[in-house]
Amino acid sequence: MFRHVVLFTWADDATDEQRAAVATELGRLPGIIPEIRSYTLGTDAGVNPGNYEFALVADFDSADDYLVYRDHPAHQAVIAQYVKPILASRSAAQYSY
Amino acid sequence: MFRHVVLFTWADDATDEQRAAVATELGRLPGIIPEIRSYTLGTDAGVNPGNYEFALVADFDSADDYLVYRDHPAHQAVIAQYVKPILASRSAAQYSY
Repeated sequence: MFRHVVLFTWADDATDEQRAAVATELGRLPGIIPEIRSYTLGTDAGVNPGNYEFALVADFDSADDYLVYRDHPAHQAVIAQYVKPILASRSAAQYSY
Repeated sequence: MFRHVVLFTWADDATDEQRAAVATELGRLPGIIPEIRSYTLGTDAGVNPGNYEFALVADFDSADDYLVYRDHPAHQAVIAQYVKPILASRSAAQYSY
């Protein structure tokens, strides 16, 4: 499998509705992009200080399938409309396992 | 499930042997810590610029089981002996899904 991991923190002035909308809108993507094999996301549980606020882990059969997801118009639309307006920082990596 | 996600970047002077040892030593932990349900890790595939260099995703039945892993002496030993000596930056989050 090819795994995509991304972590976000949000701007201080991001509203609860804006934060929730990211999860809702990203969560629609597995129904739109068939290359997605597994897709989990969530708000940080608050167990450790200094964490990022939101995490997403997505699995694909191959790097090429990940690229289909990365560049898919529906994904790009969620990034532009819901993620970027409240994004403070982003960390990511992809790896095969 | 309770998912732990962590990303690392390494110091510029970290050797290939040191970087490889992190994966090897972390990879032993599922055989030592029975609370681990799933454990995948890998070096960034190089698909995107600006990524972190190493990622790890671990699943547990509960937040309490994650804490057993987090605080386990075998895990702490790997952090102290293999991760921290070459660590440049770390990002993490935990979430339920």
